[in-house]
Amino acid sequence: MQKIKDLEYAAAVLHWDIETYMPAKGVRFRSQQMATLQALAHELFTAENTGVLLKELVESNNLDDFKKTNVQLSLEDYEKATKLPNEFVKESSVIRTEAFQAWLKAKEANDYAIFRPALTKMVENKKQEAALLGSKGHTYNALLDQYEKGAEVESLDALFKDVREKLVAFVKELKEKGQQSPNHFLKHIFPKDEQWELGLDLLKQIGYDFEAGRQDISAHPFTTNFSPEDVRVTTRIDEKDLMSMIGSCIHEGGHALYEQGLPSEQYGLPLGSATSLGIHESQSRLWENNVALGLPYWKANFESLQKTFPSQFSGINLQSFYKAINQVSPNLIRIEADELHYHLHVLIRYELEKGLIEGTISTENLNKIWNQKYRDYLGVNVPDDNRGVLQDIHWSQGLFGYFPTYSLGSFYAAQIYAQAMKEIPNMIIEIEKGNMKPLLDWLREKIHRHGRRYTSEELCKQISGEGLNLKYFMDYATRKYGEIYGL
Amino acid sequence: MQKIKDLEYAAAVLHWDIETYMPAKGVRFRSQQMATLQALAHELFTAENTGVLLKELVESNNLDDFKKTNVQLSLEDYEKATKLPNEFVKESSVIRTEAFQAWLKAKEANDYAIFRPALTKMVENKKQEAALLGSKGHTYNALLDQYEKGAEVESLDALFKDVREKLVAFVKELKEKGQQSPNHFLKHIFPKDEQWELGLDLLKQIGYDFEAGRQDISAHPFTTNFSPEDVRVTTRIDEKDLMSMIGSCIHEGGHALYEQGLPSEQYGLPLGSATSLGIHESQSRLWENNVALGLPYWKANFESLQKTFPSQFSGINLQSFYKAINQVSPNLIRIEADELHYHLHVLIRYELEKGLIEGTISTENLNKIWNQKYRDYLGVNVPDDNRGVLQDIHWSQGLFGYFPTYSLGSFYAAQIYAQAMKEIPNMIIEIEKGNMKPLLDWLREKIHRHGRRYTSEELCKQISGEGLNLKYFMDYATRKYGEIYGL
Repeated sequence: MQKIKDLEYAAAVLHWDIETYMPAKGVRFRSQQMATLQALAHELFTAENTGVLLKELVESNNLDDFKKTNVQLSLEDYEKATKLPNEFVKESSVIRTEAFQAWLKAKEANDYAIFRPALTKMVENKKQEAALLGSKGHTYNALLDQYEKGAEVESLDALFKDVREKLVAFVKELKEKGQQSPNHFLKHIFPKDEQWELGLDLLKQIGYDFEAGRQDISAHPFTTNFSPEDVRVTTRIDEKDLMSMIGSCIHEGGHALYEQGLPSEQYGLPLGSATSLGIHESQSRLWENNVALGLPYWKANFESLQKTFPSQFSGINLQSFYKAINQVSPNLIRIEADELHYHLHVLIRYELEKGLIEGTISTENLNKIWNQKYRDYLGVNVPDDNRGVLQDIHWSQGLFGYFPTYSLGSFYAAQIYAQAMKEIPNMIIEIEKGNMKPLLDWLREKIHRHGRRYTSEELCKQISGEGLNLKYFMDYATRKYGEIYGL
Repeated sequence: MQKIKDLEYAAAVLHWDIETYMPAKGVRFRSQQMATLQALAHELFTAENTGVLLKELVESNNLDDFKKTNVQLSLEDYEKATKLPNEFVKESSVIRTEAFQAWLKAKEANDYAIFRPALTKMVENKKQEAALLGSKGHTYNALLDQYEKGAEVESLDALFKDVREKLVAFVKELKEKGQQSPNHFLKHIFPKDEQWELGLDLLKQIGYDFEAGRQDISAHPFTTNFSPEDVRVTTRIDEKDLMSMIGSCIHEGGHALYEQGLPSEQYGLPLGSATSLGIHESQSRLWENNVALGLPYWKANFESLQKTFPSQFSGINLQSFYKAINQVSPNLIRIEADELHYHLHVLIRYELEKGLIEGTISTENLNKIWNQKYRDYLGVNVPDDNRGVLQDIHWSQGLFGYFPTYSLGSFYAAQIYAQAMKEIPNMIIEIEKGNMKPLLDWLREKIHRHGRRYTSEELCKQISGEGLNLKYFMDYATRKYGEIYGL
């Protein structure tokens, strides 16, 4: 298992290099090298002998509890991986390549119709995949399970119903009755070098270990890991958008803290891996939103921020800064959304992809349905396909079942953060002093060190005494934004 | 073959990352990841089936000339690789690890005695290896052949006899009768940033393609390649030693030009690889010494150098600069030696390792024999083992037969450069204008594009009409240094 993971991590290093330092012409053979590593890893893992050995081990009585869990989870992975026949895997790869090309062309022409035939094929392919994987209940469950073990339409429907009713209503209330605060000063010029240094300082402050990682610049910020002792983040800097850099640093930093907190003695094994995309996202969002968009965090940091950018923040006090960075409004693009409207974007995608997979929505008028939902939930008019149904890469890559994990992340984060506040003495006072260690230590203890031992829901219950409940997110949202908007 | 090379190149990317950007704690699992990639590559290459397929193909009549050559050379490699039994390979790896540890300890204590037992074991191991590999003539030939196909004691003895007689005499003459020129101004402070920019400009000037490569900083300069379209160099900068940076940039740049000039359609195959260490070194040294320590090169570049460092070179003219950078003197450390004395360092190592392998020299008094030879050939007294027999890493890594390739590189370079001057119209005039393209194009045509099609000696004959002949190097040395030293 570790050897296979060595190959996958090597591929991750090659990918990091592509995104950061590789010279332009390097891409041709680099793609081939990565494909070779990934194919070899897949081949080794799905080899018949792997299954034979795992099945033998799972029956053994000589394993300690850690090994037992590693064997069980590995066998589970093996069975999932071998459910898809090689022929199907190859065919899927071709469909993905075609869909991606079609998506690029469609974006260039700003015309969904160009993407539609490929998307139709893709949806059929995902239905077949779901059938091959098999699952209890709804067909879409098999796809969800790939990113969020145990996630099911039955519970997500209830969750997103809540989102549709409560969150849609709340953001409407904010818009209609709330009091906006000025935030023009956030659009000043913030020079690159100062932003870069600030980003490094903020990463250090939350506890990111620069001996076991580094930050670089890339076109799209991401986190990657080659072991718990080498977890790297990237960011990008827009001189006109300071908060985008801060948000991306802390977001990726949150992902990285999870990876750096995984047990290194379980390197390459299930117990040395993150449990799910939802929990991963909970760690990035907890730091990005619950912590770094909070008043205590800026009590700790605003003074030094003001020193770094004296002219930009001249005459601005902590309260007006805090309100400025927490202005929310409906928008067209998911990745530019604020922490409330974001989930309406996900809600729409969830409803659409579930509908596509179960066959209640066809690809024919998908752009029109998309636009209608944006009017209904966000109150915005989508002017064209590029700012509508073509904005995300996911469907062209076959990533069906992925979007919900983004919202799950925020909702888990709110629930986990509420519990942290209860359990950690003086947590907020420590954050106000710039001391994030009590919170990080608690997350390490409750989440990071367990690797894949517990599913998202099991972890959530263990930490908070109940499964995921939107109440925590709504409480957080209404209290925070009610105050900011003077409701 | 290409898949195997994909794995090896992936390992090379991981190694590049270690030397440039990897955070400190990353080293533990990185070593494991590299070991996995290398072991897999070795396993795939030495698999019985590889041999079966290659033997089948070598008999085939359906291959074009390129494929035929690739198959023949691959089979040769396969047969060499499978001559060493797995048991022996493992044992050798242990001996290497022990020897390296002992060498580190010996260096720390500045005491050869600590290294001696491990070196004795290593020498026995290399004798066994030579026996397993088999070779015509001298035992040492089998080891030489690993780095320089076809190199043999029989011809190297003649070559190094010439070095011992002619070069030793010439440097003695320079020392006794030559006129030294001042070079104190080279020891001024040259700020890092300006040096860095200068290095990039000089690399561009010789034709290094930054779209297919990049330069970074590392503790020891090196060149690495992941395809002909991604060939990277590193350098280091000492603010007190401008010429060290220039030398290392151009040296690594010369290696890189060779790799960038290999045919990309032969990626991963013998015809897409460099032919030998000696020829590789000839490319780095030709640019570093024959070109970039020459007067025409500085006719092109001195003016802009002076503009970059006006105070450091105030009152210095081209002639005095040229003489200053070409001052030679005997010294203790190989890697700090000038282009003449360098070969006396190699001569000593050649004599010693040949003696160790044939059994005429024992490890017992190796440090004393070393010191005696330094007195005899260079006229210097070695004050301690660290500045003597312990200075190189090579023997602790089992690299016997490697040192001679350094000198072969310079000697081939002189012979190739002499031919280039004959064949390329106005080459020197173009270099004086900063135009290196005629020379690079000629090297591409004569050497780079052939990959491993010809051995070093075959290439040399093809280019110059005769095999390696020290005469070209001695002519170059006596003409250049005779003039500089006013003999």
